[in-house]
Amino acid sequence: MPLEAISSAAVLRDIVGRVEGIADLGDGAFEVRVGLATATTGLEAGQLMSMLFGNASILEDVALADAELPADVVEAFGGPRHGLAGFRARLGVADRALTASALKPQGLTPAQLGDLASRLADGGIDLIKDDHGLADQSYSRFADRVAAVTQRLRPADAVGRYLPSLSGHLDQLRAQVRIANDHGVGAVVVAPMIVGLPAFHALVREFPDTAFMAHPALAGATRISPSLLLGTLFRLFGADATIFPTHGGRFGYSRETCGALATATLRPWRGLRAGAPVPAGGMTLDRVEEMLEFYGRDVILLIGGALLAAGSDLTGQAQAFARRVAAGC
Amino acid sequence: MPLEAISSAAVLRDIVGRVEGIADLGDGAFEVRVGLATATTGLEAGQLMSMLFGNASILEDVALADAELPADVVEAFGGPRHGLAGFRARLGVADRALTASALKPQGLTPAQLGDLASRLADGGIDLIKDDHGLADQSYSRFADRVAAVTQRLRPADAVGRYLPSLSGHLDQLRAQVRIANDHGVGAVVVAPMIVGLPAFHALVREFPDTAFMAHPALAGATRISPSLLLGTLFRLFGADATIFPTHGGRFGYSRETCGALATATLRPWRGLRAGAPVPAGGMTLDRVEEMLEFYGRDVILLIGGALLAAGSDLTGQAQAFARRVAAGC
Repeated sequence: MPLEAISSAAVLRDIVGRVEGIADLGDGAFEVRVGLATATTGLEAGQLMSMLFGNASILEDVALADAELPADVVEAFGGPRHGLAGFRARLGVADRALTASALKPQGLTPAQLGDLASRLADGGIDLIKDDHGLADQSYSRFADRVAAVTQRLRPADAVGRYLPSLSGHLDQLRAQVRIANDHGVGAVVVAPMIVGLPAFHALVREFPDTAFMAHPALAGATRISPSLLLGTLFRLFGADATIFPTHGGRFGYSRETCGALATATLRPWRGLRAGAPVPAGGMTLDRVEEMLEFYGRDVILLIGGALLAAGSDLTGQAQAFARRVAAGC
Repeated sequence: MPLEAISSAAVLRDIVGRVEGIADLGDGAFEVRVGLATATTGLEAGQLMSMLFGNASILEDVALADAELPADVVEAFGGPRHGLAGFRARLGVADRALTASALKPQGLTPAQLGDLASRLADGGIDLIKDDHGLADQSYSRFADRVAAVTQRLRPADAVGRYLPSLSGHLDQLRAQVRIANDHGVGAVVVAPMIVGLPAFHALVREFPDTAFMAHPALAGATRISPSLLLGTLFRLFGADATIFPTHGGRFGYSRETCGALATATLRPWRGLRAGAPVPAGGMTLDRVEEMLEFYGRDVILLIGGALLAAGSDLTGQAQAFARRVAAGC
């Protein structure tokens, strides 16, 4: 959002991010400190993540190195309910490192997994977790797996030692934690980037007696090709339109990447409806014709700041945008 | 999972991924085709993502270039309910590109956003969306914003033109879609990587009349420093323990990265409980002492495949693991 497009004094004073320092690290790299207003996070996990590295995650030459969080933010989210001390207490192990192992591979039956667990427990492993690849597949339903594994563990062990792996959306996650609890299981494994940070945080809040082990699956997802993730997969999951940073704007996607992304959104594909490509990110009025030439007319052109920057002439600029698009098709 | 650790013929035949081709692209790069079994996805969005690029996302020299999805998977997820044609139909625009703009910046009041929307609509913009930064913050609650914006649009425009931005976990997302519907709004913006793909897909299924515009925020999150994301932030959101790929194993994290990650999990920090670092990823028995020396005893050592590879001697290997850890502390 261009600063010059902001007319509200309150926003300029209280909301806009501030560059608090720039240090030249050499070799063309810079360390930049940006101050953000707590209010912008709404104290919600997803929105905090979005403020920290939402759009910035798309900038190919930007990395999020660290974040300092004020006390009220930390307090609002709350952190672990059990932590290492909780695992220690449950296991009765005060003064040594804990051991853990994993139940896998995928494809084993619940009985086979229970057998593995029993053998690991017999061997004295402290914590026995499902491989994160164990979800709710047909060959090993979550409920069947938890029943089979806990049946093979001593009741006291089930509470502190076995950690089944959760998957799915919030309702499914809740149901799985309840199943675990019904079997005396007090800890679980979940991949926050897979289920989403909001769901992860909601679960933690709703089940204070359960210990959560986080798994890093998908935590490095930037290297997915944009046409696959934003194009093909978002469409697969139901996106009627998909916004992406177009070439020549503020972001680094190439013409080729954008073309592939639009194609992935629109192309005939196993009978699915076509989605709408929405190129955006620093688009300006003077690029309308170029964009139309590149994307064709099956597109939603998105111009944000460049219109709002018009200030009192916003309507005029909007009209100009509408006209240029109408004229260009 | 080492193949030699798999004793089930059914798993080897039906579940294990297959390398279907390797092509040398030059300059040390290779294109590798891997075939995965549909059953491993459980036909659930998060688990599909996990199979495609869960752990692989952490491998610094691996990128997910593309994925071919069989018809039954595509059919199960279902794709867009409206797509570009739906936007066209609602807007009555059949034969040209559509226009869109965004309501921002954050910090404006609902009335101010409504004013912007009204002005954009007056200018003839087809689609007016909330900036994805508009969540449910104190200065612009979702319900207030939708009420204020729709009040400024003609009723017919509210259905097809305004797209408020959703945020939060599944219950919050559902409540927001219902609020939008109550105001005649039939389309929304949401960032799937922020709310989580399972939540995104659940929403799409539950609200077939609503059109969803996907936003790419966080879709490039790999460049977050691991100590921040897996250490500090996962802990902040409630992780009692956090698994990460330790140095010297299958993954590329350095000793320094792992040390920083463990420190972020354990260090005294604004009164939060310490989480448990769980280094993993190709750990073997012969590294127990080294790991203990490096991480100290406030750690959960995780060894999976290397134990399971023992086959019939699993119990023995597990015992050996337990013993080595006990002896090393």
